[in-house]
Amino acid sequence: MKLPDIYCNPSQNEWPELCRRAEQDNSQIMERVVAIVERVAKEGDKAIKELAMQIDGVSLESLQVSEAEFSEAEAMVSAEVKAAIEVAKRNISSFHEAQLPREVRVETQPGVMCVQRPVAIDSVGLYIPGGTAPLFSTVLMLALPAKIAGCREVILCTPTNKQGRVAAEVLYTARRCGISKVFKVGGAQAVAAMSYGTESVPKVDKIFGPGNRYVTLAKQLVASRRTAIDMPAGPSEVMVMADETSLPAFVAADMLSQAEHGRDSQAIVVCNSVELAKQINDELNSQTQRLERGVYIAESLANSRIVVFDDKSQMVAFANEYAAEHLIISMEDAWSVAEKITAAGSIFIGNYSPESAGDYASGTNHTLPTSGWARSYGGVNIDSFMRKMTIQSLSTEGLESLAPTIVAMAEAEGLEAHAAAVKVRLEK
Amino acid sequence: MKLPDIYCNPSQNEWPELCRRAEQDNSQIMERVVAIVERVAKEGDKAIKELAMQIDGVSLESLQVSEAEFSEAEAMVSAEVKAAIEVAKRNISSFHEAQLPREVRVETQPGVMCVQRPVAIDSVGLYIPGGTAPLFSTVLMLALPAKIAGCREVILCTPTNKQGRVAAEVLYTARRCGISKVFKVGGAQAVAAMSYGTESVPKVDKIFGPGNRYVTLAKQLVASRRTAIDMPAGPSEVMVMADETSLPAFVAADMLSQAEHGRDSQAIVVCNSVELAKQINDELNSQTQRLERGVYIAESLANSRIVVFDDKSQMVAFANEYAAEHLIISMEDAWSVAEKITAAGSIFIGNYSPESAGDYASGTNHTLPTSGWARSYGGVNIDSFMRKMTIQSLSTEGLESLAPTIVAMAEAEGLEAHAAAVKVRLEK
Repeated sequence: MKLPDIYCNPSQNEWPELCRRAEQDNSQIMERVVAIVERVAKEGDKAIKELAMQIDGVSLESLQVSEAEFSEAEAMVSAEVKAAIEVAKRNISSFHEAQLPREVRVETQPGVMCVQRPVAIDSVGLYIPGGTAPLFSTVLMLALPAKIAGCREVILCTPTNKQGRVAAEVLYTARRCGISKVFKVGGAQAVAAMSYGTESVPKVDKIFGPGNRYVTLAKQLVASRRTAIDMPAGPSEVMVMADETSLPAFVAADMLSQAEHGRDSQAIVVCNSVELAKQINDELNSQTQRLERGVYIAESLANSRIVVFDDKSQMVAFANEYAAEHLIISMEDAWSVAEKITAAGSIFIGNYSPESAGDYASGTNHTLPTSGWARSYGGVNIDSFMRKMTIQSLSTEGLESLAPTIVAMAEAEGLEAHAAAVKVRLEK
Repeated sequence: MKLPDIYCNPSQNEWPELCRRAEQDNSQIMERVVAIVERVAKEGDKAIKELAMQIDGVSLESLQVSEAEFSEAEAMVSAEVKAAIEVAKRNISSFHEAQLPREVRVETQPGVMCVQRPVAIDSVGLYIPGGTAPLFSTVLMLALPAKIAGCREVILCTPTNKQGRVAAEVLYTARRCGISKVFKVGGAQAVAAMSYGTESVPKVDKIFGPGNRYVTLAKQLVASRRTAIDMPAGPSEVMVMADETSLPAFVAADMLSQAEHGRDSQAIVVCNSVELAKQINDELNSQTQRLERGVYIAESLANSRIVVFDDKSQMVAFANEYAAEHLIISMEDAWSVAEKITAAGSIFIGNYSPESAGDYASGTNHTLPTSGWARSYGGVNIDSFMRKMTIQSLSTEGLESLAPTIVAMAEAEGLEAHAAAVKVRLEK
């Protein structure tokens, strides 16, 4: 296996290259995505069923998961997994409940009351990708805050296996989160169905959830035209900041945990000694051999690297340049290093906070910004499921008092009707 | 002039048509926008200067506004407008300061600490369109929350007039808001400059501000690839909910205030009597004649309509379907009607809260979601300039306690390295 390259004290003009994520050329498939979306928009359920047969070889009668299927799923999930889901659900719920925003009221001047009112988005759609072992943890991460925020309608779309069945853990978890409407549709078709609505699938106001390139491009397409989405998506990544207080075995394990997500994923270590870098590589080597899918996982380290800086402030600056989706800080004074981080999705403090803890059950959300989007996006949280409307109410005195200001500005902007709307009221 | 049509008790299947905004076919110009953006990305300042000459006939030496130009601007703005700007600044600042989010800390289970930390976006770019009477109020609406949120870098781009000068009110207001970096560039070029950075213009993490179709499409382009934007944009609109407590003169004035924004803008009235509808139309007629640009403004009423419902709950349902950018509620129990509104950008309560109050100086933000985007977006507010990072810190006991949950879920998801990252720590 090829171990990550080690870079020593790279100069700042080399950083962009070191922070570069894997290239994603989506130009070929965008045309196909547009075609799928337009077809589902036009033909609804019929198109979904035809595409399921065409793309996945699956024959679907009903697109909606039935009560019987939910019950079968419940019986199939082990007690151990059910217990784990309860713990994760409790932690994720309590952290997200604490985020609920309050109304803000300010009387900016006498008789001029301004209010900022948070209101849940009415209808949201969650996408859960399929696969051999579907990531049901994402159901918790999206459904729980949607319900806590108060969204009236929360639906879920997920593709089936070749037998037309949805993974039991996904159905069980959806039901535990209070979701009753689950639809058997995947890919760009699912995004289109939720954006336009079909005979079976309700139209939603915002779409959440990860997916393959077809899903990602379809989300991008609808986001510019008609339906909001959670955030731009890209391959998963982790950066580990390490020093002499780290354990190389732990750092290597965290890198492999990330690499497990696939070829495009990336793990970057930023540390303060070449010796430590080599120890980490040794650990990567030995741990890869012990994992069942170790060879496959090792290939996914192709995009990974270790960067050594003598200077701690350089480590921090580099971390901020990278703007990691997941940032593990295994350093002395980790909290104080965290204070200096200006861009990251989710931060993990110390040696006993593996990324897996956040992925599943600490309480934080695992739907996080990748590819540097952490500079401008936060991860999914309660705000993602709400909007803040503003309200103003002026008394007659309030308007009289504010009138000269409004009129002066409107006239300076050449907007006489804006000024007139105030004047007509003053005349009364 | 053609007065708005009056519709009576339309059935629900007619509502989508009544709520329809003007069509916007942007397919022709997207190609041109892509070309401009690519050119500026590649050639920087040189491209900006060439395009300024080519498109606007303006010759620019330096792209950055100089101290001398700021001083000249200050001298040119009238004392009246300066005083108005101070009042608006004070109100907008106090309302946005009250929105500053706090850190959230929850120990979700013993030894598992989760934190949500709001952090200002590092670098933001504000776009202010040009024109004969530039809308300098937008400078307040974008710059003040950017500074209050704590963004380290706040830059502004705005096109010049044919003489290469930026409107004095824009420069004065920018300076009053603490912005020192203003660049003479407009259109898609400005968006490209802020997204990619040029020799003169810093690259930013997020771009804010309204603009023509070139600006809007350029923002859409970069938003999917590299740089976040505030929200999707479209023509301005107002909905007025009116009953016997309204004054037709006020309603008409508010419609004309909206129509003043141009042909694509829309004003919809929802009221409970045909008589009132006719009175509003009479007022529109007479007020249009009294305005200097009345004929032009009247043409912009082409997309406007009055919808009459006997039933108050239908009025509310229709308002929620429309999801207005600005919603004026001139009704009895206006606050209680507001409680039932699930989608609107900014709400105006009662007869003395004209939209102009919110546009300029009440304290609320005037950068609001149009075209039904209010269903999933709020207006620009403090959150728009921040992100919420999460942090977790597990003690050894916390991890030991959470381990069975993480391992059970990781193994059920087929992610053995995720489970191994926990197990390697338990072994220590």
